[in-house]
Amino acid sequence: MSIFEKAREHAVISSASSALGWDQETYMPDAAATHRAAQLSWLSSRAHELATSDAWKKDLEDAEAANTGTDAKLTANLRELRREFDRATKLPVELVARESEATSLGMHAWAEARKNNDFASFAPHLSKLVALAREKAELWGYENEPYDALLDGYERATSTAAVASLFDDLRPQLSSIAAKAVEISKAKAVPLPAGPYSIEGQMNLNRQVAEAVGFDFSAGRIDTTTHPFCTTLGPSDVRLTTRYNLEDFTSSLFGVLHEAGHGLYEQGIPGEDFGLPSGSSVSLGIHESQSRLWENHVGRSDAFWNQWYPVAQEIFPQLASYPLESFLNHVRRAEFSPIRVEADEATYDLHIILRFGLERRLVRGELEVKDVPAAWNASFEELFGFVPPDDRHGCLQDIHWSMGGLGYFSTYSLGNLNAAQLFAAARKNPEIAAATDRADYAPLLKWLRDSVHVFGATLDPADLMKQATGKAPSPEDYLAHLTQRYLA
Amino acid sequence: MSIFEKAREHAVISSASSALGWDQETYMPDAAATHRAAQLSWLSSRAHELATSDAWKKDLEDAEAANTGTDAKLTANLRELRREFDRATKLPVELVARESEATSLGMHAWAEARKNNDFASFAPHLSKLVALAREKAELWGYENEPYDALLDGYERATSTAAVASLFDDLRPQLSSIAAKAVEISKAKAVPLPAGPYSIEGQMNLNRQVAEAVGFDFSAGRIDTTTHPFCTTLGPSDVRLTTRYNLEDFTSSLFGVLHEAGHGLYEQGIPGEDFGLPSGSSVSLGIHESQSRLWENHVGRSDAFWNQWYPVAQEIFPQLASYPLESFLNHVRRAEFSPIRVEADEATYDLHIILRFGLERRLVRGELEVKDVPAAWNASFEELFGFVPPDDRHGCLQDIHWSMGGLGYFSTYSLGNLNAAQLFAAARKNPEIAAATDRADYAPLLKWLRDSVHVFGATLDPADLMKQATGKAPSPEDYLAHLTQRYLA
Repeated sequence: MSIFEKAREHAVISSASSALGWDQETYMPDAAATHRAAQLSWLSSRAHELATSDAWKKDLEDAEAANTGTDAKLTANLRELRREFDRATKLPVELVARESEATSLGMHAWAEARKNNDFASFAPHLSKLVALAREKAELWGYENEPYDALLDGYERATSTAAVASLFDDLRPQLSSIAAKAVEISKAKAVPLPAGPYSIEGQMNLNRQVAEAVGFDFSAGRIDTTTHPFCTTLGPSDVRLTTRYNLEDFTSSLFGVLHEAGHGLYEQGIPGEDFGLPSGSSVSLGIHESQSRLWENHVGRSDAFWNQWYPVAQEIFPQLASYPLESFLNHVRRAEFSPIRVEADEATYDLHIILRFGLERRLVRGELEVKDVPAAWNASFEELFGFVPPDDRHGCLQDIHWSMGGLGYFSTYSLGNLNAAQLFAAARKNPEIAAATDRADYAPLLKWLRDSVHVFGATLDPADLMKQATGKAPSPEDYLAHLTQRYLA
Repeated sequence: MSIFEKAREHAVISSASSALGWDQETYMPDAAATHRAAQLSWLSSRAHELATSDAWKKDLEDAEAANTGTDAKLTANLRELRREFDRATKLPVELVARESEATSLGMHAWAEARKNNDFASFAPHLSKLVALAREKAELWGYENEPYDALLDGYERATSTAAVASLFDDLRPQLSSIAAKAVEISKAKAVPLPAGPYSIEGQMNLNRQVAEAVGFDFSAGRIDTTTHPFCTTLGPSDVRLTTRYNLEDFTSSLFGVLHEAGHGLYEQGIPGEDFGLPSGSSVSLGIHESQSRLWENHVGRSDAFWNQWYPVAQEIFPQLASYPLESFLNHVRRAEFSPIRVEADEATYDLHIILRFGLERRLVRGELEVKDVPAAWNASFEELFGFVPPDDRHGCLQDIHWSMGGLGYFSTYSLGNLNAAQLFAAARKNPEIAAATDRADYAPLLKWLRDSVHVFGATLDPADLMKQATGKAPSPEDYLAHLTQRYLA
């Protein structure tokens, strides 16, 4: 078996895990949890064994030695397989086991701590997880600071300094836009007519919209879960989930558009390369750019609702006398919330800037875990002008740290910046702009397929952005978009 | 790892396959089929490798050598693991591969042949499959005739001669009951009021009924598929499926009762022994006894509908003026159909007797494949009094032979006999009889748990029946039941 056959076998195993994971979130009966954990653990052990085996190493070395460098895709695939192999094998088994235990205990402790608003009970776990993150960073290696190595796991070939610089450029204007947006939004708000918005009606509208943006239901589906997600079970098997709020159908609809954005990316990656880097998504920041593009740039636009509001009105009779303008204000409302997952487009990135700053200081050892609540609140007040009512609405709100996911948060904002930059670049093509303005999204999707999806993980995210848009990632288009949307 | 740990690991792998198989039938998008096949093939290769490995053999031998015979369950587990190991390893890999190809081609050819009513195009495949069955039988070994070895794969420790003798006892009286039942049924029939019977209503009734017979929804569920089935994804994860006929809700309801019968058995097998013979079902004939007991003995009884018909009438308003007596005649109607899967309780076993006789002659070499259609029709006429209109309604109707499943059919009738014998034995307890007569099924289920389910596969089916009912399997109770139901 060549390294490519091995990589495909690895993907078969991992995708079986994805299938079982999907079932666990959607349909699995409660009592089945213990056995499901045993199935998933068996599969992930087999995948790990394979991808860190001597045979894998030898096949990879043989392929590297035989590579003449003339085939760019082959070269990229080998480079990325090498990167993954090195990351996977640089951590000793005992550290992986220690981390697995620490995150398992950490997630449990976090859930309790959040429930009881008791940061002190979570603090020893967080200390251990930060220490583990630093230990991993040392083993992985980095150029400037340990946080680089953590970030690299989510957004490869991206430095902490580059992200910090993007956020420094973003922050002053973003703060000013957000403050004005919240004020204007409050003045214009007319509440959405009361529900219930029937689940059947929401499912109907969601499906029509997902089809209209190009999601292929012969190779995918939508189910219901507590927390929406998109997961790939195979090269032609992409599953989205959503949830339903009887009082506001737009919550489910934007959830579907967001997840469909992820799903369109997955459906656009070359299926024949499934399991190889050229058949995989490249990074979280690019993945999130696709979800945000469809959710916000498409889904919250005038053109979109000119087309879809009459359909929604037909499905939900209570919208009959609620004007389109009020509806548009509703879906573009801005307000300061202490909770990230409830934040709107105008205020979301302030939450990320806060987390990125604290994480970086934690990993650098400039901030002690015991001081996190105070640092959180101080930073929050600086960014939002008020202090969260308690740690449940502050430093205990997110699950990421308890899972050992330090280095993850910034990819949400990178996604927002990338989305704006890609959408602006696509619209420079007059045909795409015209079609998008009449809610015909086929040309836009084709451009994304050709400019982003088709490359899989063969280009580094920043290079992919540069090739697709003609410039390095920058906050320029994003700020222009927010200004246009919220202050025009 | 001991042999028991290995057996549990094997069950983890197989149950992952079951989970993917369930998804394939319920929710998987069409385009995902190719990749799903790759996942399933990878899993089944790993399971096969493990269960036929030298390490498995050595661990089994070590455990056998260490066994003092004082622990009956341990001894039974080792005996059954040995039986499975020998069956799995007696076939050379090249034969397994040849069979896999022959069944894959055979199923395809069968589907085409049935569609085109063209037995000749399927005949060469069937010849190959019969030859393979005989080849396997020779390798597995048998006492009296090759068919024994095939039957043993579905109903262990049961001889062809014993089944033939049961069927010889059954047949004359069954023919006479069936003929009268069809005549009486025709005279009494008042058609069920026209549909539509809403799917929502059917789902509601199905779920209430499944709960009432004791199916545990915290460890199971019901979904929708083209062909109803029951599958076990883990010790606390049993999934039933059904389909909906808008013109007759009883079709789905009896399907659910049938599958719930299988599911109650699976839920009653000791979960802590999952993967060991003591934590597995024993045979198809015992499994089918559980489904038939709940479907026919419980579900088609007066007591059941005294309780549930008012509920059905509330859910489906069109039943309001349809009397209970007509409804009971409807759910117990008998008629001669050429198609086995459409057959009712009074006529079903005639279809099985026909198939068992032909299969046995095919495997003995007493019947040539080219003569199957003529032999089928002659036997059918003898049993039913008419000839099927064509081979699609005759020897091409069932998928079993094309899958290489020779030896399977008789277990359906063994299930019917066992169901009647178990139900009669349970009702000898006056408390169970009284509770069952008021549609309270907890005592009956407890009896089945204690008399059948708890033993897993530690007893041979005939011994299990003898221990549970005090007598060897016999058609006596079944014939008494049919007489009472159809001729009283």
